[in-house]
Amino acid sequence: MAYQLHYWPGIQGRGEFVRLALEAAGAPYLDVARDPGGMAAMERCLDDPAVARPPFAPPFLVDGKTVIAQTAAILFYLGPRLRLAPVRETDRLWVHQIQLTITDFMAEVHDVHHPVAGSLYYEDQRGEALRRAPDFRGNRLPKFMRWFEAVLERNPSNATREAPHLVGARLSYADLSLFQMVEGLLYAMPKATRRVLRQVPHVAALHDTVPRHRRLAAYLASERRLPFNEQGIFRHYPELDG
Amino acid sequence: MAYQLHYWPGIQGRGEFVRLALEAAGAPYLDVARDPGGMAAMERCLDDPAVARPPFAPPFLVDGKTVIAQTAAILFYLGPRLRLAPVRETDRLWVHQIQLTITDFMAEVHDVHHPVAGSLYYEDQRGEALRRAPDFRGNRLPKFMRWFEAVLERNPSNATREAPHLVGARLSYADLSLFQMVEGLLYAMPKATRRVLRQVPHVAALHDTVPRHRRLAAYLASERRLPFNEQGIFRHYPELDG
Repeated sequence: MAYQLHYWPGIQGRGEFVRLALEAAGAPYLDVARDPGGMAAMERCLDDPAVARPPFAPPFLVDGKTVIAQTAAILFYLGPRLRLAPVRETDRLWVHQIQLTITDFMAEVHDVHHPVAGSLYYEDQRGEALRRAPDFRGNRLPKFMRWFEAVLERNPSNATREAPHLVGARLSYADLSLFQMVEGLLYAMPKATRRVLRQVPHVAALHDTVPRHRRLAAYLASERRLPFNEQGIFRHYPELDG
Repeated sequence: MAYQLHYWPGIQGRGEFVRLALEAAGAPYLDVARDPGGMAAMERCLDDPAVARPPFAPPFLVDGKTVIAQTAAILFYLGPRLRLAPVRETDRLWVHQIQLTITDFMAEVHDVHHPVAGSLYYEDQRGEALRRAPDFRGNRLPKFMRWFEAVLERNPSNATREAPHLVGARLSYADLSLFQMVEGLLYAMPKATRRVLRQVPHVAALHDTVPRHRRLAAYLASERRLPFNEQGIFRHYPELDG
């Protein structure tokens, strides 16, 4: 049976990290809320008191009777099933740990343009965002990127810098997610991101080579891949870049 | 061999969520950075290029050759080993999913007093904090608490409201973490938290009954349990409560 992915239509958002894994694996899935009536189905899952294990928020995955929310937990569940995670328990936990760090990174990227409240418009917190952005560009962005660089450098399977992987010698969902982070950051803050990328050659190489994956390339060129926009996590407000 | 927990001394912080699990299970562990020379040992793990799988930040756990960072990943690893997680894979993933939601909740609590940058003092972002706090108290705090209430209500093992558990009929690390969240919030924002607690009786009951656990009660009364203070995640700034 096809996986059901529930996520807000109209943005890539957190759902995209799950989508990239499903697409790279060629797994059959329904992108529920993008279909007619799908938003109602998603909201039913969120609000229905009969759901024993309710998601806190989208994205969530429905696989038969199993309902799983939290992007990193969904990917942890899907990883072995999609052959996008290593076999050994400790390796699998390491991929998950990297994914959780990507989750933290992503939350910080989001909060650059929403430092006061997710419920307010950017325009209502632009002043605070202008204060937060320089710290993100100067401290947090390089710190996260250098950590991913260290992880790639220290992976013994990356003997050369061509097509590096975060864990072992095969593509994992964490590679897909790091590609997406860099792609999103290049959209949101092209100046700051390009500057940092010059200092993290393994991360840059991963970002260049991951989208050459055959199925992923087909997805990225398809209409299923939404463009970045100013409703999602990665938003291009030129005043926050520099 | 004893587990080694590495975390900043002087605060409860994220390390406390791991500590509560180790203490409740009566597991032998070293709180490395609290011992003489321990900070240097912790920083070596963070900076040493020979560490193949470097932690991004404390807390991290060392178990023999395994090094695991990320609070939720540490607890996922420890859960079955400490008998603080259910046996079935889907149940274990559900506990983990709850823990990841606690992680998100905790990050939001922290960012109430640090909406601009973790690297700045509170006093340097007090204005922004004063804007963020009402949204947290009015929207986010009740939303998270209502979700935990729903999880407790819908757990079929909680036939009565006395001593409820988030998952199944036994204590899990997520119960310990939710207790800690409520405890910390009662310290940081007593007015707002008490008001919300009146609307979530299962959460209030969990917070009342978890610390009656024998080993946990002994820990909470010991000197190992640091008091809350204005360096950690939960900080009492009266102007942010209300």
